[in-house]
Order: sequence, then structure tokens, then C-alpha cells
Amino acid sequence: MSDILIQGATVLTMEGHDCIFKEGEIAISGDSILSAGPKGSAPEGFKPGLVLDGSGMVAMPGFVNCHTHAAMTLLRSFADDLPLMMWLSDKIWPIEEKLQPDDVYWGTMLCCLEMIKSGTTTFADMYFMMDQVARVVEKSGMRACLSRGMIGVAPNAQEAIDESIRLVEKWHGGAGGRITVMFGPHAPYTCPPEYLRKVIGLAGRYGVGVHIHVAETKDEIEQIQAAYGTSPVRHISRTGLFELPVLAAHCVHLDQGDIEIIAEKMVGVAHCPESNMKLASGISPVAKLLEAGALVGLGTDGAASNNNLDMMEEMRTATLLQKVSTGNPMVLPSYETLKMSTSNGALALGLPGVGKIRKGMKADVIMVNFHRPHLYPKHDLIAHLVYSAQSADVDTVIINGEVVMEGRRVLTLDEEEVLFEAQKRALKLVGEK
Amino acid sequence: MSDILIQGATVLTMEGHDCIFKEGEIAISGDSILSAGPKGSAPEGFKPGLVLDGSGMVAMPGFVNCHTHAAMTLLRSFADDLPLMMWLSDKIWPIEEKLQPDDVYWGTMLCCLEMIKSGTTTFADMYFMMDQVARVVEKSGMRACLSRGMIGVAPNAQEAIDESIRLVEKWHGGAGGRITVMFGPHAPYTCPPEYLRKVIGLAGRYGVGVHIHVAETKDEIEQIQAAYGTSPVRHISRTGLFELPVLAAHCVHLDQGDIEIIAEKMVGVAHCPESNMKLASGISPVAKLLEAGALVGLGTDGAASNNNLDMMEEMRTATLLQKVSTGNPMVLPSYETLKMSTSNGALALGLPGVGKIRKGMKADVIMVNFHRPHLYPKHDLIAHLVYSAQSADVDTVIINGEVVMEGRRVLTLDEEEVLFEAQKRALKLVGEK
Repeated sequence: MSDILIQGATVLTMEGHDCIFKEGEIAISGDSILSAGPKGSAPEGFKPGLVLDGSGMVAMPGFVNCHTHAAMTLLRSFADDLPLMMWLSDKIWPIEEKLQPDDVYWGTMLCCLEMIKSGTTTFADMYFMMDQVARVVEKSGMRACLSRGMIGVAPNAQEAIDESIRLVEKWHGGAGGRITVMFGPHAPYTCPPEYLRKVIGLAGRYGVGVHIHVAETKDEIEQIQAAYGTSPVRHISRTGLFELPVLAAHCVHLDQGDIEIIAEKMVGVAHCPESNMKLASGISPVAKLLEAGALVGLGTDGAASNNNLDMMEEMRTATLLQKVSTGNPMVLPSYETLKMSTSNGALALGLPGVGKIRKGMKADVIMVNFHRPHLYPKHDLIAHLVYSAQSADVDTVIINGEVVMEGRRVLTLDEEEVLFEAQKRALKLVGEK
Repeated sequence: MSDILIQGATVLTMEGHDCIFKEGEIAISGDSILSAGPKGSAPEGFKPGLVLDGSGMVAMPGFVNCHTHAAMTLLRSFADDLPLMMWLSDKIWPIEEKLQPDDVYWGTMLCCLEMIKSGTTTFADMYFMMDQVARVVEKSGMRACLSRGMIGVAPNAQEAIDESIRLVEKWHGGAGGRITVMFGPHAPYTCPPEYLRKVIGLAGRYGVGVHIHVAETKDEIEQIQAAYGTSPVRHISRTGLFELPVLAAHCVHLDQGDIEIIAEKMVGVAHCPESNMKLASGISPVAKLLEAGALVGLGTDGAASNNNLDMMEEMRTATLLQKVSTGNPMVLPSYETLKMSTSNGALALGLPGVGKIRKGMKADVIMVNFHRPHLYPKHDLIAHLVYSAQSADVDTVIINGEVVMEGRRVLTLDEEEVLFEAQKRALKLVGEK
């Protein structure tokens, strides 16, 4: 891994709306940013092994995808336009039962390939056979926060806990520090309080966080209300879970009291607008969450309910949906939206060293090519990123100081091999020839 | 213009959900499709001057963008996250007053460049200095339906009518039949009934349609209710306008009676979900319109309120927004959404010879490269197009039998010149150096 100098790019630091260096420079040493500033700001004597020309490009933190089920790329566009329970029980679950470790490996490979090509440098995943996922993260060069999804009411509830413990012991801090692990109790309606308390004890003992689905659908609200007489957020809060670092996916159906708990307990929200829209789950009150001071990141959810892993698209959908649903075009302005997909997403994953371009931060940098018709004229680059850009504009991706994509060519994975293997396994799974 | 044979592509005809030729062939002669079918279906003796290899691609009708203000690309990302009236009166209108013919020319050039690169082959435009727009359409090779926007309450109301007449006389059927013209009374709240009746008389005399904004905001509903005691749709219907072919942009705020009128009168609706969301105007009841049998196409609106002209993105937003707003994930399934952006959009513009791949139809064909991580595995190509694809996947564009883009290189325009001129003029307009 040689030291890198990015020259001539417009550097968008995410340190503040106007903290942009028009003709900037980023020096990267090892896995971290050594300096970021205007032209000529790299420390004297810095001898990069690689100089990247950023002319016409914007260099910025890579995107943080706060909620995925990576291997579900294999089921992309396999079942659409269906109600959630029919989608799950008739289509998704029967296939997932057949999944073999190699399927999870290649599905996750496809996911990582797509994420790198769309500028995502970090993702939070919840699935199973997580050893396979960790292997792909190691190979692809990505940064990831991994959780073994645990269903407390399933026959394998204890096995899932054992696997989670092994995942923490084997992979937390692994792949050169690029992998962190969280416990992954699926949701309050699939994990009874005693199971959650077991998880709380373990997460506390290992010093890791918890990734959980919360308040995704109206059905869940009704179920939790019937069983515990309160909302999912209050119910979870009573178990003590929110005393740990928590990444809460969806958070669609919240009342003001829920919002205040989420803000006060510094729960990281993984907002997944496209999945929530596609499954008609509802609209998360993100503007209210932000007003209450909550920490909100963005996620795509799995590719089977999105159907891609495109964080630029997710940003645009997030802000447009808040504007129309609140009737206020001023909510979620472009910079706030960009924070959700970068610096605030990283915080939601418990990664304060990621998501900004600043000395000492991890060197997760993407370069976006602005020499595109849809990014002209150049009035406002932040609005361009949120409202106009597309992920194919991402030219170069650096993660942890390593160049993972250059000129749209992914260097860590064999793209043709990944497409071939994913296609083969997907068709086998769904029973086509 | 030489005859063209497209070989090896998957041909998506838009003649029915399953009317797809997996290894298909399209023969193009002159401006029209000579044949479309499986491999070897081109007529015997057909001697193409150009053979295009469609391996790994989907060949389908080009997108029809039913509502734009093309030259407003110059104001892309110039003013965002603002309420509609502040956006218009403080930001957009002061700049539009300064627009010179050359600005409209190069702004429209940038628009056409972006549209071609994102697979749009036909657009409906409403703006002013439309002679400039027609010149760009002629040069770019696009198909367009042009209207001079007319404000009946403005001092130049009569001038706008005179200009519209000149536009019809000079350009209707122009550019080798690629240009059609409509009259463009702006909206019911800016055009009093007597003005609309004048327009009706003229449109009838010239045998052309009418492009108008209808029921875009709640303010409009209140204004029309106060002035005429009814809804915009009923008010317009009373003037007799709907006896002509009408392209009605937005149609956000409709009651059941309005919906029935729109369906019965075969009004073409230009649904613009991203603009309606960004300006917080509201959510058009598209699912109900379709249920009533109405004809609905898709539009981006101008780039100043979107902020791009990307029809793939618009499709995805349209279906996701209907699902979440109706609470029903089954509404606007992928094929219905694709019809909105192709065949039904063409019908809304009064172009029944456009929007399908069939013998005798105009040869407006795009080839989309499916060899992309986000388009694997290949379970369902229609769902892929609507839920996963991005406009950068468009590889080749043919309009009226002419290859306008090949391998993402636009052949009719000088891309660098367009970007340079648009940037220069935009900065001059907003007063930057």
C-alpha cells in the first residue's frame, strides 16, 4: 500500500456546508488521511507512491450504507410488486432455506462489486453464514459492520447466539480493522425480551453494538402493542437495549415519544426510504427525527426490496419523500441529506473515524466525475450530488488507503467472475436452467 | 441514412408483458421499423448498411419525456429546498427575464445532450423563444412536441398567441416530421376562460393539440375554486378545451369527478413525480387515474425543479411513490410503469406511431447494456429496468432511423462545446464570473 496524493479535485470535506476546497489536495498515508486542504497543503517531504489526477472531479467521503442483506442480490428482481408477507413467505423464505455457503459468498460478492462501483465504502450487513460475508469483505477491500441475524423465536435461536459470538471473536477488528461486528437480534417481534436481554449481556461483555429492525410496519406496531401494551421503541427501551450502541433499521412508525427516546438514547437510525416505499411499509418521520436531534443514516436494505444498492439514488429519494410527505420543500436540504449518507451514517455504525475528509480520519475517499451533462452548469455541487448525480459518475474509490476502483475498473475483484458465478447460483436457486 | 439491423439483443417490444424476443432482431428502413422478431426474422433480401451488435443488451423503445422546460437546465441546482413561490419569484423569474435567444439555444442543447445520453428519444417542451428550441431539435436528431408557453394575464398575451401561430406554421411537421407543435396556455389560473377559448379556436383551426399545467398545487385549487366555484379540471372542461387533444401536466390535486373527466375525455396526463415531490406540491393519484382508464405518461419537468432529466429515475420514483402513498405494494407494477415512460407517453403526446417496437412504427430504439453488476442476476428484465437500472446503462440511441448515440458517444452534438457554452451562459446569467 503506497501513499497517495489526490490533486486538482474539488475536495468536499463534510466538515461543514462551505468547507470545500475548490482546487484541493488530499494526502493519504497508510490507512489514514494525512492532510486535506487547498493546493500545496500536503506536508513538506510527503512522497506519494501514487498521484491521482482529480481534475473535473469532486473528492469526498465514500458512502456509508447503513442497512443491507448483502447476499440477497441473488434475489434481485425475483419477486416484485407484492405485499410484504406474500413476498416473504411465498418467494423469499423458500429460496433462503436453500442457500448454501457458496451462494452467500457469491451473492455478497455481487453486492460488494455493485457497492464499490456506486461509491459505497462502508456497509452494515445483517444476514447469516456471516463467515462468508467476512471473507468477501476481506477480499473486496470494503469496510463493513457485520451482524448475524438472530430470530429469538426460531428453533436455532441459541445457535444464532453461538454463531454471533464466534463472529465477534473471529472477525471484530479483522481485515486490517475494516471489519467490526454487532449482535443482530432481528426485531422486537421475533426476539422476546428475555432473548434481547441475553443479547444485551453479550454485547456489553464483548463491547460491541446491536443492529436491529425497529418499527418497520404497521403490523409490527399492532403486534408489539398487543403483546406488551406499548410501542416497539418503548418496549425495546424497557429491555435496556438502548443503553448500548444501537443501529435501528427502518424506524418508520414512530410517535413523538418514540422520537424523543431515539434522540436521547443516541440510537443510530438506518433510514431505508426505497425499501419502505416499495413494500408500502410507510414513511419514516425523518424530518422530525432530525429536529429532535436524532442521528440518522441511510441504507438501501437488501437488493430484493429496492432493487439496487445505489446510495445516490437513496439520498435523492430520502429528501424528495420528506419534502412531499411533510408538505415542506425546505426539509432535508441537500447538505443534511449528504451527511446522512456519509458522516452521520458512519456515526450510526459506531465509526467516528470514518465519513469525513480530515487529518487522522480513515482514508475512505471517492472521486466523482462532474464532467457530465447532468452535472452542468456548476451552480452548486452539493445540490448536484443529491439531486442530479448518478452512481455511474463515481470514477475512483479508495478504502482504508487502498485504491479499490480506478477509472471505474474494480481492482480487488474479478468483475466477470462475480457476474458469472452470481448468475449461475441465482438461477440454480430459483430452479431455472 | 442507411438501413440498420440490430442483432443479438433481447427485444422488448412493449406490445405486451411477455412479448419479448430473447435473442431478437430489429430491421430498420428509413425512419421506420421494417420488422421486429426472433433471430432471422428480418425480411429476405434486407441489406442493412449498418449492423449493430446487441449482445448483452436490451433493445426497447426510447423514453418519452412528457413535460419539460428544456432551457431551464441553465438553472439546474441554482435554487433548491425552497417553497414554490419563493423559488419562482426570488430566483427563477428574475433570471428568466434576462434570457437571450442564445441562452435558450444552449440551455436546450444541454437538455437534449442529457436526454440522449439517458435514453430519451422524444420530449414535450413548453417554454419561450421556441424557434431556438426547434433549431436544437433539428440538429440533435430528437423528436419533440413544442409549445410556446402563454400567460393569458400577462402584457404579452396576444404576442404569445402570435408567436404560437408562427411556431405552428413554421415547425409543425418540421425536421423530417420529428417536430410537432401544440398550443401552450400555461395554466387555468394564468389564462382566463376567454383566452382559453381563443386558444381552443386556434388549435382547432390548425388541427393541433394543447399542452397545459393542471391542478399542480393546492394554491391553484383554491384560486380556481374562489374564481369559478369549481375544480381546475371541471373549469377547463367547461371551456371546451378537453374536446381537443390535451396534454395536461401534473394533475396532482384531483377528486374522483376530475379523474373521471380526465379518463372520459382521453386527456393525456404528464405525471411529474420528482418535481411534485421536490416542490412539495403533492402526490398525483396515478393509481386511481389508471384504474379509471386514464392515459398517463411520465415527465421530469424542468431541470431546475428535479434536478435532472432522467426517465429511468422518474419511473422508479413514480412506482415507489404510488406504492407508499396508497399503502398497496401491488399498484403500478413494473410493466405498467414502463408503459408510462414509453408507449403511453407517446399517446399522451398524440404520437401513436411512436413508443413500441413493431413493424411500421417510427424507429426510436434504445439499447440498454445489461452487463452491469446492478442488473445481475437476470431474473426479470422489466423489473430490472424499472427498479435497478440507471440511465448510464443506455448504450445506443436511434431516433427516426438515425443513430444519434453509439457506445455512449453522441454523434449529432459536440458534447464539449455544449458543456462549455452552457456553463459560460449560466454563470453570466446568475452574475458570477
